[in-house]
Amino acid sequence: MGGDLAPAAVVEGAVLAARRHITILLAGVRGELERELHRYPDASGLDVRFLDADEVVTMDESASAGLRRKRRASIRVAVDAVARGDADAVFSAGHTGATVLAAHAAFGLLAGAERPALATILPTLAGHAVLLDAGANVECRPSHLVHFAVMGAVFARVALGIERPRVALLSIGEEAIKGNELTREAHRLLKSTPLDFIGNIEPHDVFTGHGDVIVCDGFTGNVALKVSEGVADAIQALLRQELSRTWPSRLGMLLSQRAYRRFRTRVDASAYGGAPLLGVGGLCVVGHGRSSAEAVRSAIELAARYAERDILGRLQRELARTTVVSQV
Amino acid sequence: MGGDLAPAAVVEGAVLAARRHITILLAGVRGELERELHRYPDASGLDVRFLDADEVVTMDESASAGLRRKRRASIRVAVDAVARGDADAVFSAGHTGATVLAAHAAFGLLAGAERPALATILPTLAGHAVLLDAGANVECRPSHLVHFAVMGAVFARVALGIERPRVALLSIGEEAIKGNELTREAHRLLKSTPLDFIGNIEPHDVFTGHGDVIVCDGFTGNVALKVSEGVADAIQALLRQELSRTWPSRLGMLLSQRAYRRFRTRVDASAYGGAPLLGVGGLCVVGHGRSSAEAVRSAIELAARYAERDILGRLQRELARTTVVSQV
Repeated sequence: MGGDLAPAAVVEGAVLAARRHITILLAGVRGELERELHRYPDASGLDVRFLDADEVVTMDESASAGLRRKRRASIRVAVDAVARGDADAVFSAGHTGATVLAAHAAFGLLAGAERPALATILPTLAGHAVLLDAGANVECRPSHLVHFAVMGAVFARVALGIERPRVALLSIGEEAIKGNELTREAHRLLKSTPLDFIGNIEPHDVFTGHGDVIVCDGFTGNVALKVSEGVADAIQALLRQELSRTWPSRLGMLLSQRAYRRFRTRVDASAYGGAPLLGVGGLCVVGHGRSSAEAVRSAIELAARYAERDILGRLQRELARTTVVSQV
Repeated sequence: MGGDLAPAAVVEGAVLAARRHITILLAGVRGELERELHRYPDASGLDVRFLDADEVVTMDESASAGLRRKRRASIRVAVDAVARGDADAVFSAGHTGATVLAAHAAFGLLAGAERPALATILPTLAGHAVLLDAGANVECRPSHLVHFAVMGAVFARVALGIERPRVALLSIGEEAIKGNELTREAHRLLKSTPLDFIGNIEPHDVFTGHGDVIVCDGFTGNVALKVSEGVADAIQALLRQELSRTWPSRLGMLLSQRAYRRFRTRVDASAYGGAPLLGVGGLCVVGHGRSSAEAVRSAIELAARYAERDILGRLQRELARTTVVSQV
């Protein structure tokens, strides 16, 4: 039920995933969901089931108030299905705060985790990087950033196969003294961990591949990601404007559009579709509010892949072994 | 003396500006500056003078410690020349914190200003917007953001000619309750001002032109700007990669490069070259650390234009009239 284009885009994404043989449980208002589902002639042949939930946490509610007031909120019904073992993972494109809170409440924290954090897998010129927190914690203390670094490093190892991830702290200025109180103290703490901490990374190097794990508070991470999308969109609009002027430049557009689309696919939400919520004892993937059907499909497949590869179990075992967390 | 490419790029930029009949005072180590200047055969015919300063605040120093230790730091010598009336404006591509602190100390604050803020003029799909603070204040209280909004609105009026600027608060989520403690409280305060406050703006809308004045703390503003540069650079690199593959796509590159360059010129530092420091009683333009000679020239010309149009006097008069500042 959640997301700017819900339920249409979410149901369509679920249908796309179901066609690839993933069993789907749709949590929400059954009448609405059935109506959406019946748009697809092959729906009756797909393994799509329903979890009745007649309430939805809306974007203008605070997460805690929304979940407190709405005992039958769709996000709660969805995470409960995972907690009971009826589903392997939950995906939502709705209220991020409510998703984080509901997952935290239903799954609890993994041993060694202090707070859940949203990890976004970024495309870089060199491959991929994990940026966290991407928006689960808008207020952070320095020790939280150290916990994010540990979780991010474990995640980069088990999910991206990077044996010894280079951890960087997002700040404004490379030098340890640059940044705000949060980053200066986090820098000091990170230096004393056994992580491969490579120091501060400046925002313009996020996409160059200088770091494998990029750590920041959730407000800054969310701003960085959303600004990136805005710039990519603006470039696309300006390129179109400029390139549609003359006949030869329209040819140029055709050629450059393809190149551009490759980048866009790598950058934007449709490519990865969702950010795994790290630190909780269940698989949870959070989608962009503007998730298209393709983004939803991609996120559901990501969640399914993580379930098949037991990413959660591996995270849990590695985190429990990582003593650094308790030292901070 | 300041900036990643200094003194070469700064002196070259000064020469470019001097050729356009702007009188230049170069503050720094005279031997080094003369050596750079003598690379230009026409230098002796240009109005370029020297202000001796044998020390430089370096990037690994804190602003306050650097200025305290180095009584003859080039940035101090430069701002002092403006404070004495020997120059109309100061430009630096060096240590931002040191520039802000030195300008604040030498010029004092304008009546109605509580803190200086760096204002960046952003290109948007609709025209231009002012984003502040772009990096002068890494820690902010909600009332500071209100002061930035007032200064930004006055600046948008006098420098960009926008009669009633729409003021937006940069946050993660459009709703008033979204964001962190700082933005939630700032939102509440901004609603009670006579400004045309249009609410929160999400980071992906920074470049769409939804707001004329975009307000945030200096850490967030600096991250947003630097990430934007990083994305633009990454897109350029990927476009090049993709477009240089085949003969026809090389043609596409030629065409799209031109379109891309237009955007890049609008986005990056070279276009505007510098961010005016608002709130202090003297004209000060802060350049990007990576300022090229073109960026330096552009920033010097911006400073000269502001001096000619008495932007400072107009800011001062309008700010003094704006009672909102004292209400917060």
